[in-house]
Amino acid sequence: MDSQAFDLVIRNARIATASDCFEADIAVRDGRIVQLGLALPPGARELDAAHRWVTPGGVDAHCHLDQPMEAPVRMADDFDSGTRAAACGGTTTVIPFAAQQKGQSLLAAVQDYHHRAEGRAHVDHAFHLIVSDPTPQVLNEELPRLIAEGYTSFKIYMTYDDLKLDDGQILDVLEVARRHDAMAMIHAENADCIEWLSKRLEASGRTAPRFHAHARPLLVEREATHRAIALSELVDVPIMIVHVSGREAVEQIRWARAQGLNVFAETCPQYLFLTAEDLGLDDNYLGARCVCSPPPRNRANQDVIWRGLADGLFTIFSSDHAPFSYEGTQGKKPGGEEVAFRHIPNGIPGIETRLPLLYSKGVLEGRITINRFVELTSTNPAKAYGLHPRKGTIAVGADADLVVWDESPRTIANTQLHHAVDYTPYEGMELQAWPALTLAGGDVVWDGRQFHPRPGAGRFLRRGRPSLLPKRSAAA
Amino acid sequence: MDSQAFDLVIRNARIATASDCFEADIAVRDGRIVQLGLALPPGARELDAAHRWVTPGGVDAHCHLDQPMEAPVRMADDFDSGTRAAACGGTTTVIPFAAQQKGQSLLAAVQDYHHRAEGRAHVDHAFHLIVSDPTPQVLNEELPRLIAEGYTSFKIYMTYDDLKLDDGQILDVLEVARRHDAMAMIHAENADCIEWLSKRLEASGRTAPRFHAHARPLLVEREATHRAIALSELVDVPIMIVHVSGREAVEQIRWARAQGLNVFAETCPQYLFLTAEDLGLDDNYLGARCVCSPPPRNRANQDVIWRGLADGLFTIFSSDHAPFSYEGTQGKKPGGEEVAFRHIPNGIPGIETRLPLLYSKGVLEGRITINRFVELTSTNPAKAYGLHPRKGTIAVGADADLVVWDESPRTIANTQLHHAVDYTPYEGMELQAWPALTLAGGDVVWDGRQFHPRPGAGRFLRRGRPSLLPKRSAAA
Amino acid sequence: MDSQAFDLVIRNARIATASDCFEADIAVRDGRIVQLGLALPPGARELDAAHRWVTPGGVDAHCHLDQPMEAPVRMADDFDSGTRAAACGGTTTVIPFAAQQKGQSLLAAVQDYHHRAEGRAHVDHAFHLIVSDPTPQVLNEELPRLIAEGYTSFKIYMTYDDLKLDDGQILDVLEVARRHDAMAMIHAENADCIEWLSKRLEASGRTAPRFHAHARPLLVEREATHRAIALSELVDVPIMIVHVSGREAVEQIRWARAQGLNVFAETCPQYLFLTAEDLGLDDNYLGARCVCSPPPRNRANQDVIWRGLADGLFTIFSSDHAPFSYEGTQGKKPGGEEVAFRHIPNGIPGIETRLPLLYSKGVLEGRITINRFVELTSTNPAKAYGLHPRKGTIAVGADADLVVWDESPRTIANTQLHHAVDYTPYEGMELQAWPALTLAGGDVVWDGRQFHPRPGAGRFLRRGRPSLLPKRSAAA
Amino acid sequence: MDSQAFDLVIRNARIATASDCFEADIAVRDGRIVQLGLALPPGARELDAAHRWVTPGGVDAHCHLDQPMEAPVRMADDFDSGTRAAACGGTTTVIPFAAQQKGQSLLAAVQDYHHRAEGRAHVDHAFHLIVSDPTPQVLNEELPRLIAEGYTSFKIYMTYDDLKLDDGQILDVLEVARRHDAMAMIHAENADCIEWLSKRLEASGRTAPRFHAHARPLLVEREATHRAIALSELVDVPIMIVHVSGREAVEQIRWARAQGLNVFAETCPQYLFLTAEDLGLDDNYLGARCVCSPPPRNRANQDVIWRGLADGLFTIFSSDHAPFSYEGTQGKKPGGEEVAFRHIPNGIPGIETRLPLLYSKGVLEGRITINRFVELTSTNPAKAYGLHPRKGTIAVGADADLVVWDESPRTIANTQLHHAVDYTPYEGMELQAWPALTLAGGDVVWDGRQFHPRPGAGRFLRRGRPSLLPKRSAAA
Repeated sequence: MDSQAFDLVIRNARIATASDCFEADIAVRDGRIVQLGLALPPGARELDAAHRWVTPGGVDAHCHLDQPMEAPVRMADDFDSGTRAAACGGTTTVIPFAAQQKGQSLLAAVQDYHHRAEGRAHVDHAFHLIVSDPTPQVLNEELPRLIAEGYTSFKIYMTYDDLKLDDGQILDVLEVARRHDAMAMIHAENADCIEWLSKRLEASGRTAPRFHAHARPLLVEREATHRAIALSELVDVPIMIVHVSGREAVEQIRWARAQGLNVFAETCPQYLFLTAEDLGLDDNYLGARCVCSPPPRNRANQDVIWRGLADGLFTIFSSDHAPFSYEGTQGKKPGGEEVAFRHIPNGIPGIETRLPLLYSKGVLEGRITINRFVELTSTNPAKAYGLHPRKGTIAVGADADLVVWDESPRTIANTQLHHAVDYTPYEGMELQAWPALTLAGGDVVWDGRQFHPRPGAGRFLRRGRPSLLPKRSAAA
Repeated sequence: MDSQAFDLVIRNARIATASDCFEADIAVRDGRIVQLGLALPPGARELDAAHRWVTPGGVDAHCHLDQPMEAPVRMADDFDSGTRAAACGGTTTVIPFAAQQKGQSLLAAVQDYHHRAEGRAHVDHAFHLIVSDPTPQVLNEELPRLIAEGYTSFKIYMTYDDLKLDDGQILDVLEVARRHDAMAMIHAENADCIEWLSKRLEASGRTAPRFHAHARPLLVEREATHRAIALSELVDVPIMIVHVSGREAVEQIRWARAQGLNVFAETCPQYLFLTAEDLGLDDNYLGARCVCSPPPRNRANQDVIWRGLADGLFTIFSSDHAPFSYEGTQGKKPGGEEVAFRHIPNGIPGIETRLPLLYSKGVLEGRITINRFVELTSTNPAKAYGLHPRKGTIAVGADADLVVWDESPRTIANTQLHHAVDYTPYEGMELQAWPALTLAGGDVVWDGRQFHPRPGAGRFLRRGRPSLLPKRSAAA
Repeated sequence: MDSQAFDLVIRNARIATASDCFEADIAVRDGRIVQLGLALPPGARELDAAHRWVTPGGVDAHCHLDQPMEAPVRMADDFDSGTRAAACGGTTTVIPFAAQQKGQSLLAAVQDYHHRAEGRAHVDHAFHLIVSDPTPQVLNEELPRLIAEGYTSFKIYMTYDDLKLDDGQILDVLEVARRHDAMAMIHAENADCIEWLSKRLEASGRTAPRFHAHARPLLVEREATHRAIALSELVDVPIMIVHVSGREAVEQIRWARAQGLNVFAETCPQYLFLTAEDLGLDDNYLGARCVCSPPPRNRANQDVIWRGLADGLFTIFSSDHAPFSYEGTQGKKPGGEEVAFRHIPNGIPGIETRLPLLYSKGVLEGRITINRFVELTSTNPAKAYGLHPRKGTIAVGADADLVVWDESPRTIANTQLHHAVDYTPYEGMELQAWPALTLAGGDVVWDGRQFHPRPGAGRFLRRGRPSLLPKRSAAA
Repeated sequence: MDSQAFDLVIRNARIATASDCFEADIAVRDGRIVQLGLALPPGARELDAAHRWVTPGGVDAHCHLDQPMEAPVRMADDFDSGTRAAACGGTTTVIPFAAQQKGQSLLAAVQDYHHRAEGRAHVDHAFHLIVSDPTPQVLNEELPRLIAEGYTSFKIYMTYDDLKLDDGQILDVLEVARRHDAMAMIHAENADCIEWLSKRLEASGRTAPRFHAHARPLLVEREATHRAIALSELVDVPIMIVHVSGREAVEQIRWARAQGLNVFAETCPQYLFLTAEDLGLDDNYLGARCVCSPPPRNRANQDVIWRGLADGLFTIFSSDHAPFSYEGTQGKKPGGEEVAFRHIPNGIPGIETRLPLLYSKGVLEGRITINRFVELTSTNPAKAYGLHPRKGTIAVGADADLVVWDESPRTIANTQLHHAVDYTPYEGMELQAWPALTLAGGDVVWDGRQFHPRPGAGRFLRRGRPSLLPKRSAAA
């Protein structure tokens, strides 16, 4: 290889992968890593990591961008602002959701979503599907075709009237996942329990945001988690339980794995850094900003989640970024009104803060190793959703998606963030680190102070099969 | 870097680390990996991996070589034959045991062991300590000094009259591990239960080898495992439960980890590929060859062990190579006699077959991924015992300890093995793979047919601190 | 008291209650026990128990008699033959089900059921309700009124299209149970899973009776059991999980109780004495006779059920008598046809054999104490359903419902039984005991050879509140 | 029977047994219950229970009276004051311990203990044995002989230097229990852990009473409990884990029982009503009064113990009365000195308050039923230790040991108690009930205000086999 062909060489990188740590220079050509080594020849461009930690760019496998909502509600972030925020927080791949509406063709939903992404994304992206209407057409034709075309994962809801599937429908969709080797993500909360509690809360005038947490106690999540596990066991297919919030669901997942079931789990920053008290201790509406499902729990449950991150229970750490502004008419106050908790758009922004939060509070405070940080935020999401090893690691042949970490104190302030949401739930939190540099495909998209836009340079990724598990099962 | 300086370039390697898979050339200088990349410049020597899998050389973190025994018993393998066999099976680092005898200084034991290793080892090696007599001198002076000098792990026995510590002594030794950040390995079987059962078996004339398994049922291991966990919890220090054999101990370990305790576990080939029936179904003495402790269990327990390897319960897969010949006067027939089961030297040879067995039956039969194979056999042992990232991975800066895999059928035959033991318990087993090439420090020590001796070129490794866990605890 | 007033004195009774064993004479007046003592004065009638065991008459808290079915299916036993069989097997109180049909008023169902019982019953009886259509009218008016009138328990189905409630409906019904202190019984199987499996089995031509068991694996019961527990936890009300069949549901119930939840459980003879093999090993239709839900499992699960009977996990042992004849047009061959497993009427006869089976195989073979036998078959059902201490014990003031046991060998033969069903699944089983005498309200209804009819003498029992738990909760 | 022969008739008793509740008159002759009935003929003496609850006299199966101690320590209660206090609190049978000293013959210990009891006891009594030196003589001759003579239970200590057995010795003693069908009681705490912690506490000057709890954390009890379970499993013999204090041991016991092991458990008032804070929050010596082993825990553990009492986990509720006065030279201040926590005599008085505490806080506050109260305090201890049905129930043929309950408020004050200890740990607690009347063998020993001495009328009870389990095992 003609060494002059290096477009970029990053010097003195203290590289962390999901398993290893080593010092090397990184040579990039055509957006990919072509060499790792000591004292590499010069590149057309040179950057000095100065012995700081360099990790693979984050893969945010659970985020919502420009997803169609019922008017007047509208997501604040589209593919432009969403991927801008991602990049500035060290995330170089996002996988938002192409959501089928009941009655709609899944193909149409995907096509629509491509239109929304087109020309806007600053970083690479793929689409999960949301299956809300598993007609025979969807099950037998659309899903198999879309999986073959690289949409190798889909989400199933056990709650929300417009999205939820019943157990029979879930079995049908899981059967497709099994037959075509796709990954099914499951939002596990018992819809009937939530409805039953919500009606009672409302009937007694308990409509403030904080009652959102009362309507969704841990057992509501535990029951649906157990049920999801049973359904996946029946079909004999792996599943990913998303946004696990606390002890009771965690215990079900531990149990399942001890039985030999391939049940994976994801958690999110809100279950580490928020509690139900953030929804308000009185009937003030400000807590609406932290309304998400499942709701944040308490400190003891935060500890359980930390433990699960450390010990391998969780496979993935995502943001579940769901960008609704607090003010205005399109977000947390639909039509400008303070509504009952049931009608508050669910979700919390977090695409930009995900990595810095976990790096600061996890790695630098000694709760997890830096290898585990990489595994949770980049390698495993890439493996679970068919993007590895192109994404998710620092290795020869991988895309040059990299983060160089600046370990200096910083306070989170929404004014410094790059999403289009008007608040962050983590306002004022003290961090010990932030990306000094984010590279996407070898391009600097964030330099520690400035975002470097590259709209449309973010590519749509056709994904392969999940690779968390051995290719052939032991039974084979 | 002057590319001519490459001593060796391995082309077209399909590299697996504990987390990643990628194709690259590997450049070696002075025994270490200096570059990984596409189309690297030529080296003084070139080898073509031909797109076969290349994994880090195995680290066998539990093996016994030339360990002093009570006459007439003697280990068949010394550092020469032991490391020869290791190399031919893909293992490039071994950590046998410098064993203190009761009444002996630990320093003396170490010094003696260095004499035994000197000039003989073909691959790199380090020493675990065995603490059998934790006098104040040992606890306050010898152990701290030896840890500082790179002997950062030691083994504690809960059974065997000449080795076992009582609970108070174990607490004392664990306290040293905690204070000096060393790793304690624990052989967990309840000595009194074994003694009680053995006496009854003997009293009724049940002395054949197969009664060894009757004297050590699962609960004997479970109880000691629970106790070891409790002792480590009291001292607040990580431990490694070695050679876990079956369901009951596994359940204790799962429970401990779910509680947030740092309890690590190791298992060995004998718990995957042998059962208690291999100790004989009648009173024939041949079963003596499979007498080891804990004893092999049954197929259901094998499944539990496989599951623990797949799902992360086990951190390490070692051989527990304990080389006693069947014939002659020094091994399984002490003085040439067929003795009662209690007097049969405990242990099974396996240093050479460890990797090929797991690669064939684990990776190629779809039970574990190749990443997990690397993690269990190389990366994690290196991390647990302070050798990572010099050992345990394929990365810039690591020692050039490598295995290229030949995936073709092969039948295990002791005549083809390189240890000095006169049998293998796996005689006749069909494998699907064997190392085509083993490199130690960049030298070819096994080429698929021939061993290339390099006695004395294997270096003693001063080890650092264990690195499985974050450096600072969450409490810090 | 004028001792001549004793209608009956039973001499030399070896009495067992749920907690005690003692020898005494038993004096009866007006159908109730008025004295227990040594050497009581003579009664108008005298019987000699001859130091044989005397236990309280059985309370069969789960049996189906003359329950309206969809034509042509019809239950073989009405209140005449059903209570005749009960009496001959030592059962002196039965609680069958007044079942609401969808669209029907619950009051109408109860009224209809009284008509069916009227003038026919030979022993005392009460009605559970089956709530299949929990309209506001039912929830707010009918159920509270019926509970107040002594129908203090009702059954909820999680499966069967014509009976099943969804989770929201179950919560509503449990809320009524909580508010009015009634006992909710739950049939826990996941309907969607069964439907999904059944369709697949049918599509592949697997329609023989034995596939009934394939359509309802253990996990189907486990999932619904976990869900039922969660729903009862949400509402904070005790529940009774009926006809528990095996290990997986048992583990859920153990877990719930260890959490402090008031989850009670019932099992039945079919889970001790039958296995899935009784549904046939080939496609022969005879297995239809053992089609019941949940299906019988295997020997390992039988052991789990036995263990639960011995150690207190189970509160109640019932028959779940569901009397469908094999031949003819009204039973297992609807319209005279051999139908696909899904269409076979579910259920097994067992009202007469329940006590002799448990006495022989449980008490006499040393699996449970005689006290536990009494507790499971009589005392606890009486307590759970508001009949204690009038029913369920041998004590001053209790009804003189008694069984004297004859401990001599006997083979079960349907020709010897007194139900109207044309088979028993236990044909040919060897027993070690059978009632020598059954007394109902002081009347001999079975003398060991002959049934003594007393149609209409069996009274309808208005029941009180469940009394298994303390009256006031700890929270009060 | 000539009704004039009734020595006593108690009218209008609201009788509770372990399973039933009913109203009856109770007729007594020669110290035994001879009739239960409505409107019984008059007796020589008549008492009116006035429809108050009447329960069987308490059986205190774990209490220490006049047990030889090392000078200057001496138990404050002998058989006179101890059984006086018992009677005044509703307990009519006590089973203290004949303790073998190391080197002593067990027979000698028993003989000595008879001397101490002789002529002093006001209520019936039996002796457990304490085996501290299981010589072949003890195992093969003395224990079997003593069991045959009615000493059918013995206690094994896993802690205390002068009492503890090692695992091998425990196995030997359990083997005797199995062969001769005796009940083994186990004090489960890990001696080495306690020693290790105590040394460290002392070395750092932490010697105040409150550090007693620091030296015996929950895990110390959990480990020994698990070990005891394993040992009993190995020998295949039931055991009774005594004075269980909290969650961790409880979980082990739940686990064991779910495995089908016959592991019984006892708890005591101190684990319901005291916490570690009662040992002092500062270094004041007053906390010495609450020093017992295991130590009281915290409120969450109290809840776990309550739950275990309610749901059947615990078989027995005893006092573990260990009477050491606070002042003087023989009790909590040995020789009159305030000593380090390790040297404080272990134990708490409670023989008189046991029943009133559980009746008030358990039955009357709705935590347990009155049947469960009877079972825990009387029936089960009688069954476990071979005294049932002579003791432990109200039934024809049973001893006329009875308590009539007065449900009126009362404050515990040591000045009102009848033991010889100078304090009660429950001083000032508000109760809702106290015995209005205690009858022992038909004699009134406590009339609600006055004790009626009957020294020497309390008989020594030769006990039979334990009867908690079926006579023949399922395996038989």
